[in-house]
Amino acid sequence: MPRYKLTIEYDGGPFAGWQIQPNGPSVQAALETAVATLTGGAATVYGAGRTDAGVHAFAQVAHVDLGRDWEPTVLANALNAHLRPNPIGVLCAERMDDSFHARFSAVRRHYLYRIITRRAPLVLESGRAWWLPIALDAEAMHAAARRLIGRHDFTTFRATDCQAKSPIKTLDRLEVTRTGDLIQIRSEARSFLHHQVRSIVGSLKLVGQRKWSPDDLGAALAAADRTRCGPVAPAHGLYLVKVEY
Amino acid sequence: MPRYKLTIEYDGGPFAGWQIQPNGPSVQAALETAVATLTGGAATVYGAGRTDAGVHAFAQVAHVDLGRDWEPTVLANALNAHLRPNPIGVLCAERMDDSFHARFSAVRRHYLYRIITRRAPLVLESGRAWWLPIALDAEAMHAAARRLIGRHDFTTFRATDCQAKSPIKTLDRLEVTRTGDLIQIRSEARSFLHHQVRSIVGSLKLVGQRKWSPDDLGAALAAADRTRCGPVAPAHGLYLVKVEY
Repeated sequence: MPRYKLTIEYDGGPFAGWQIQPNGPSVQAALETAVATLTGGAATVYGAGRTDAGVHAFAQVAHVDLGRDWEPTVLANALNAHLRPNPIGVLCAERMDDSFHARFSAVRRHYLYRIITRRAPLVLESGRAWWLPIALDAEAMHAAARRLIGRHDFTTFRATDCQAKSPIKTLDRLEVTRTGDLIQIRSEARSFLHHQVRSIVGSLKLVGQRKWSPDDLGAALAAADRTRCGPVAPAHGLYLVKVEY
Repeated sequence: MPRYKLTIEYDGGPFAGWQIQPNGPSVQAALETAVATLTGGAATVYGAGRTDAGVHAFAQVAHVDLGRDWEPTVLANALNAHLRPNPIGVLCAERMDDSFHARFSAVRRHYLYRIITRRAPLVLESGRAWWLPIALDAEAMHAAARRLIGRHDFTTFRATDCQAKSPIKTLDRLEVTRTGDLIQIRSEARSFLHHQVRSIVGSLKLVGQRKWSPDDLGAALAAADRTRCGPVAPAHGLYLVKVEY
């Protein structure tokens, strides 16, 4: 069974998340339906990251085994035709060895969180960023973010239903930049805990408001206590940007 | 009657254009309804540019005379509350002299046209850019664009129903830049003819495909003949970016 790597963009808004689930439409189910319609056979599509309800992707990666060989461009175009009108696009299809696994072969994941600070509600960016009609000190947020880089017990920034065996992760990058009223928070790690980025962003927002000092953020991390986390940031500001192999 | 300048963002998608018209909802009508609901009195909202159906604005400018003084931030917030759920946001309200007129006082208008060239249909940028699943030579487009800068008879690039008295306009800027698969065309002038930017973009696309040389574009301009224009580019790639006074 030839294996294909798919690079996938989606608007997370209408979906209950990446993963197939009983309570609503999922990106995975839409892709599996498109594959089944195209090939006439059922197939499982494995994703690199199980993004939550509402989380977007510029470039999620998945793999699927198909019953026969497809010219990759033909495969991508045909899947895109069958995916309509779902807001999901296959940017690229590539033939891979059987050893490739979208989830287990991934060595680094990149997420972007977007905040827009302005008085007026979002219009062209509605549903694509966290709207905060308050001032945020992005430099303080960036300084505080440095406390979280490296290998730590991230229990504070982990959903209570997180199924990872260990709360210990290595955060390789956490940068806060501002351009006008747009604040972008870029994070990279081999893997993330459930709600880790949104939990970190929700706590960094408190630093931006000067409700927390950078030391407070460091103390919240060191406590390894979920009750010390700030309110989790909403899903619609988060994007899975890139998966490295 | 105190006069207010409003800076307005909107998603042109659901509207039949800026201007009130019988065949569908308009941005102007939504604003006038919000003003009437807020103040209890009818008022006309005058816009700087009468954008067509589907054209977006990052910062349209309008003015309105109100029956009493409003603290500008209170006015903007109240209008935004009344504008929901329309995809229209008042970014800023300012108290102006009676001599200020959104349309006639404007000295320069800035438009942006966005093209995305890639095989996959647009997802996160759907309705926000012209999708072209073909290669375009942005450098050739930029070189050709220079032929249109300056004072010319723009009859070729003017809608047949354009109501301007003269087809002669001075185009101060027309630049084509590429970042990855995004091509951005920025244009500036004191004022534009009806469909001028979209007509120019539609013709530049032919240059990008190498169906037209830069000389062909210059010849089309010199002909001052509407039938020499390329197919007009779609509205949903166009943004009114800024109005200068």
